[in-house]
Amino acid sequence: MALVVQKFGGSSVADAERIRAVADRVARSRRAGDEVVVVVSAMGKTTDGLIRLADDVSSVQPGREIDMLLTSGERISMALVCMALAELGVEAESFTGSQAGILTDTDHTKAKILEITPRRLQEALARGVVPVVAGFQGVSTTNDITTLGRGGSDTTAVALAAALCADRCEIYTDVSGVFSTDPRIVREARRLDSVSFEEMMEIAATGGKVLALRSVEFARNHHVPLYVCSSFTWEPGTWVTEEDPSMEQPVVSAVTCVASQGKVTILGVPDQPGVAAKLFRALADELVNVDTIVQNTSTEGLTDISFTVSHSEIEISRAAAERLAPQIGASSVVIDDEIAQVSIIGGGMKTHPGVTAQMFEALAADEINIELISTSPIRISCVVRADQAERAVQVLHHAFSLERG
Amino acid sequence: MALVVQKFGGSSVADAERIRAVADRVARSRRAGDEVVVVVSAMGKTTDGLIRLADDVSSVQPGREIDMLLTSGERISMALVCMALAELGVEAESFTGSQAGILTDTDHTKAKILEITPRRLQEALARGVVPVVAGFQGVSTTNDITTLGRGGSDTTAVALAAALCADRCEIYTDVSGVFSTDPRIVREARRLDSVSFEEMMEIAATGGKVLALRSVEFARNHHVPLYVCSSFTWEPGTWVTEEDPSMEQPVVSAVTCVASQGKVTILGVPDQPGVAAKLFRALADELVNVDTIVQNTSTEGLTDISFTVSHSEIEISRAAAERLAPQIGASSVVIDDEIAQVSIIGGGMKTHPGVTAQMFEALAADEINIELISTSPIRISCVVRADQAERAVQVLHHAFSLERG
Repeated sequence: MALVVQKFGGSSVADAERIRAVADRVARSRRAGDEVVVVVSAMGKTTDGLIRLADDVSSVQPGREIDMLLTSGERISMALVCMALAELGVEAESFTGSQAGILTDTDHTKAKILEITPRRLQEALARGVVPVVAGFQGVSTTNDITTLGRGGSDTTAVALAAALCADRCEIYTDVSGVFSTDPRIVREARRLDSVSFEEMMEIAATGGKVLALRSVEFARNHHVPLYVCSSFTWEPGTWVTEEDPSMEQPVVSAVTCVASQGKVTILGVPDQPGVAAKLFRALADELVNVDTIVQNTSTEGLTDISFTVSHSEIEISRAAAERLAPQIGASSVVIDDEIAQVSIIGGGMKTHPGVTAQMFEALAADEINIELISTSPIRISCVVRADQAERAVQVLHHAFSLERG
Repeated sequence: MALVVQKFGGSSVADAERIRAVADRVARSRRAGDEVVVVVSAMGKTTDGLIRLADDVSSVQPGREIDMLLTSGERISMALVCMALAELGVEAESFTGSQAGILTDTDHTKAKILEITPRRLQEALARGVVPVVAGFQGVSTTNDITTLGRGGSDTTAVALAAALCADRCEIYTDVSGVFSTDPRIVREARRLDSVSFEEMMEIAATGGKVLALRSVEFARNHHVPLYVCSSFTWEPGTWVTEEDPSMEQPVVSAVTCVASQGKVTILGVPDQPGVAAKLFRALADELVNVDTIVQNTSTEGLTDISFTVSHSEIEISRAAAERLAPQIGASSVVIDDEIAQVSIIGGGMKTHPGVTAQMFEALAADEINIELISTSPIRISCVVRADQAERAVQVLHHAFSLERG
């Protein structure tokens, strides 16, 4: 008998029929002998609807009240899932984040989990009851309702799995697992049977949308095996687990893409200690999330620094860079808002020389120019023109034979 | 400076515009120097929508989960009211029933308030913050979410006013107060400036819909003056307070009507101790809410017992009565499902003889037959044919000159 946390996202509980399907799946796991803890998101577009309502009411939206508003969504879905389970003869009880013992800091709309004391969930399990827990929410140290921000429900599920010492955490979503690349770009994209936590983190950080980076990080740190699969089919999914040291790693597992980015280049920066620090402190103060950073080799005591940001943050980054350039003695700022980033990811990369060359050759053969390069031990990312990004993904997927696995 | 609890019902927070109007009203009370605690219901038809959703999902609906589901409604409205107040520069914080310290028993969907410890509300008031509290909900002794059932938000408001020793509780609704009768039946119906708790309880119990009986009872027991008025206009409303012993009471204040009832008569019941007890125990076991009961004078050791029930409970009452009739030696059961009950209510009635005669004469002059009569010290109710009920209300309203006050 395993203890399993099953997390169902918004599309998996979008309407009455989907909710009954979720209940059916949970009931089967129970009949198969597993203990199950369910975590649910709000139904479909509920959250978007609530945000629209708030926009209609007021332009001033304190975080505490946004959290109170948005946490109503999971109350609805979890109560309905419990009712659907009751109809199947499975006793279930819903628990808010607070009732599930999810204690967070007081940072409304993006709270961090401080501690989980799942006493009530354990009591429910001991009584043979399936606990159904609200994802995305907790209660703060000052007893206020908080939400965990983006990917919050995945984080709830993984954190509960860790706190309950669950055997695995199953993430049900609207795709049937983690793919070698986006099937909308490459039709031959293949579902991966398994990826390591490290690969999954790189995939999540470079455009793969199936899991939030934060929840993968949490799973890795707490050694919680994840299983990502579809709630719409019974197809097998993808395991996300510790790297198995006894196994040969695939050289490249996946190709990812961030379709729309901006590049800011500061030209003629004096190559002195502390200059880069000043620049990125200024950007951090504007809450800009810098992605790739590249600094060229210094020539004649001057260097160029480029960094990429998401498309929505180009203007604020430009303003910060232009304000700072004269202060640090740089000559000018150049903006490019038509770029994309394409990455290849694979745990075996670190022991296989030549992967970089193979990537660059494949892109060059298709006349795709590389504008920036950045690497990690298991990832190589290239910035290319935005209108060449899809083609670059297709070329790389084929070059590394990912359709064959 | 007064401390005021202001309760806004579903129609008062039905959409973004109405919510801003509520905030405007609260802000004015604050500017006038009052401390305000706000209690809100769910927006408009939210609750009905959630119940439909539950019906779509499952035919098994545990009370605990119904309560979890329905309490999402007030979270939405109270967060939005806080945001609207923030836009007007009034600091406000929302509190769930649990956060407001409303402790109930564990009787889901119709919980009773056991105790209120409004510590967080008092702290908010001390900081100059307007607490906005979810009506209709509490937390049980086992830490589960409960709802208070019908008229729950009014009860929350009155109970909080009592616990906070508020100076008054203002109930905002979609009519501008308590009327001498239903203005849809009698166009000249007049808004009453004030009624006593006792009159208001009789009005609520005999068809007046403006306040739930339970909340009036609570207000009387805890000496909380109520003020009922419209959130749609700035017209004056109706005070519901202790009877002022120094004042002459109006003989008749209001005429009420329950438009659709059923009458069950058990004929030839042996006039022995314990027989009536058996009958009404059987009905209570079926959860039938018996209204008026009349037993005729015994002739030859036999009597007839009649009672009225709401229209929806006629069939279950008939079944119970027919099952019991042979056991208690009664001869037969007769059902009449076309009756209505018309009442006159007035605190001065008890010191004015002749009111009963005046009522019966007025009905007789219009050839309205009286089928059952029941009375309290400040109320006289008559059962009449359902199709004569409206006419009876008009006749009585005129007979006691209620249009003139």
